[in-house]
Amino acid sequence: MKKALLGSNGQAATLFNVGPISNPGRPSLVRMPVVMTVAKPGTRSSSQWQAIHADIEAHLKKAIPMKPPLVVFEPMHHLTFSAPQSTAPALCIAACELVGGGRDQAMPAASALHIIVAAAVAHENLPLTDRPEIRPPVAHAFGPNVELMTGDGMVPFGFELLARSDDPAGGNSERILRAIVEITRAVGSQGMVHGQYREVEYLLSQGRDGGDDHEWADHVWAKKEGELHACAAACGAILGGGTEEEIEGLRKYGFYVGMIRGVTAHGGGRREHGASNTVVEDMKKLALQALEGFDAGRVEAVASILDAIMS
Amino acid sequence: MKKALLGSNGQAATLFNVGPISNPGRPSLVRMPVVMTVAKPGTRSSSQWQAIHADIEAHLKKAIPMKPPLVVFEPMHHLTFSAPQSTAPALCIAACELVGGGRDQAMPAASALHIIVAAAVAHENLPLTDRPEIRPPVAHAFGPNVELMTGDGMVPFGFELLARSDDPAGGNSERILRAIVEITRAVGSQGMVHGQYREVEYLLSQGRDGGDDHEWADHVWAKKEGELHACAAACGAILGGGTEEEIEGLRKYGFYVGMIRGVTAHGGGRREHGASNTVVEDMKKLALQALEGFDAGRVEAVASILDAIMS
Repeated sequence: MKKALLGSNGQAATLFNVGPISNPGRPSLVRMPVVMTVAKPGTRSSSQWQAIHADIEAHLKKAIPMKPPLVVFEPMHHLTFSAPQSTAPALCIAACELVGGGRDQAMPAASALHIIVAAAVAHENLPLTDRPEIRPPVAHAFGPNVELMTGDGMVPFGFELLARSDDPAGGNSERILRAIVEITRAVGSQGMVHGQYREVEYLLSQGRDGGDDHEWADHVWAKKEGELHACAAACGAILGGGTEEEIEGLRKYGFYVGMIRGVTAHGGGRREHGASNTVVEDMKKLALQALEGFDAGRVEAVASILDAIMS
Repeated sequence: MKKALLGSNGQAATLFNVGPISNPGRPSLVRMPVVMTVAKPGTRSSSQWQAIHADIEAHLKKAIPMKPPLVVFEPMHHLTFSAPQSTAPALCIAACELVGGGRDQAMPAASALHIIVAAAVAHENLPLTDRPEIRPPVAHAFGPNVELMTGDGMVPFGFELLARSDDPAGGNSERILRAIVEITRAVGSQGMVHGQYREVEYLLSQGRDGGDDHEWADHVWAKKEGELHACAAACGAILGGGTEEEIEGLRKYGFYVGMIRGVTAHGGGRREHGASNTVVEDMKKLALQALEGFDAGRVEAVASILDAIMS
C-alpha cells in the first residue's frame, strides 16, 4: 500500500504508507540520523558521488574557516564537519547538472542544506530535561549551551550563503529566493522539525501504547528524509534553470530517494523482512519512473544514487 | 569614552565602550531580554508606535493562525506572541516609511525580525545541563523539547515570510535578498548569538574573576540590541528603496537606538549612575546626528522612538 501525497505546493503533504500495518514485536526503525550510506569503492557510482561530496566539503571549508573569533568558528566548524553526511546536498548538485546547470549554481544551496541539517543533528542530541532517556548518548565536543547556540547560528549562516550567492548580473535572484522558500519549508515546523517531533513522541511512547510502528516511522521518514531530498532535488533543478516539469519530476524522484534512504538506513530495519525488500524495490521503480521524461543519456548520473544508497 | 566601530560591511564590528571602567560593586546590567519599553500613553510618540506594533501583530496573526496541526501551530503561536516585544521590527517599518517606502514593503522583514528574536528568547530560556543557575526561572507553557524544536522551526519560517514576499512583477527580489543577508548576519553566530554567548559567559563568571562589567555589558548590548536595531533600520531603508547614504545613515541611527535600548532596559542600570545619564544623552545626540541628512519634515516620526525608549 502506497499513499504518496504530493500536495498542491508540490511537497509530500502527509503520510507515505509503505508497509504492512503494525508489528509491535519488530525492532524500532525510527531512529535515523541523516547518515550517508557510502557506496562501496569500485561500484559504478561511488567515485561520482564521492567527488560531489568532496566538492561540497571543499566549498564549506572555505565558507567556514578556522579563524577568530575561535569561540564562534571552532564549534561551528566541528558541528558542520562532524555531522553525519546527508545525501541531500549531493542530490541537489546532481539535479542541477541533470537540467543543464553548472555545479557552481547549486553549490550554495547544497552547502546550506548540509549546514542546516548539521544544526538539526546538533539540536537533536542536546540533553534536555524532558527527553533524557530516549536516545543513545553521543560524544559531545562542547557543552550543551555552546551546541545549542552554535546550531542557532548555523541556520541563518546557511541561508546567508544561499542569499549572498545572488549575482545581480546573472539575473538569478528569483531562483535563489524560490530555493530559499523551498528550504525554509522543508526544514521548518511542518517539515523536518515536525518529523523530529514525531520521532521524539514515538520514542517516548515506545512500549507504552503499542502504536503502529510503521505508520510513525513512515511519517518520520517522509518528513526527515523524503521531503528533505525532494526539496534538495527541486532546488537543484530550480537553480539550474529546469522547466516546471523537470522541477516536479526531480522533486518526486528526490522524495523516493529520501524514503529509500530512511527505510534502508542503519540496516536492522524493514530490509530484514521479506515484505520490506519488495517495498524498497517498489519505491525504486517509482523513483525511476519520475525520471522518465529526462534525457536517457544524462539521467544515469542522477539515477545512480539509488545504487549508492541501496548498496 | 566611545568607540563605535562600524566595520567595512557597515555593521558595528566590535565593542561600543560607553562607560567608565569596571565597577565590580555595581549590580549586573547584562541580563536584558528584548523588551519593548512601551511609551507612556499620551506622550507625543506613543500612538504612532503603538499603531506600528499593532500592524505587525495583525500581520503575524495572519501568518501564524491557530490551525491544524495544533502540535505545530499552538507552541509557535504562543512563543511568537508571548515574547517580549522588541523595538527593532517597528524601527524597520519606520525607516522604510522615512525613505518614501510603503508600510507593506517592510512588513515581511519586520515580521521576520519579530519571529526570529522570539525564537532566540525561547532558546535563551531553555533549561540546559550546563547553565542551570544563571537565569531567573521563567514560566514555560511547553516542555523544553517542544520549545527547542519550535524555536528551530520559527527561524526558517521568518526567512520564508521574507523570501516569499518577493513580487516578480515588482522587481524587488534584489532588495529582499539583501535584507535576508542583513538579517542572517545580525542574528547569526557573529551577531545576536555571539551576544548571547558573551552574556552566558559573563553570568557564569560573575563574582569569580571580577571582570570589567561595563565592557562585557557593552559588548552584549552591541550584539543583542545595537546591531539588531542597526539591521532593522537598514532593512527598512533597503526595502523602501533608500539610497546607500540613507541606508547607512539609518543603520547608524538604529545602532544608537539599540544601544540606548540596551542601556536603559530594565532600569536599575547605568541610568542610576550620574555618568550614565550623560552617556545616554551622548548616544541620543549621535543618533540624531545620523538623521541629519534626512528631510526635516519627515524625520520626526523616526526620531520619536528615542522618546519612546527613554521615557
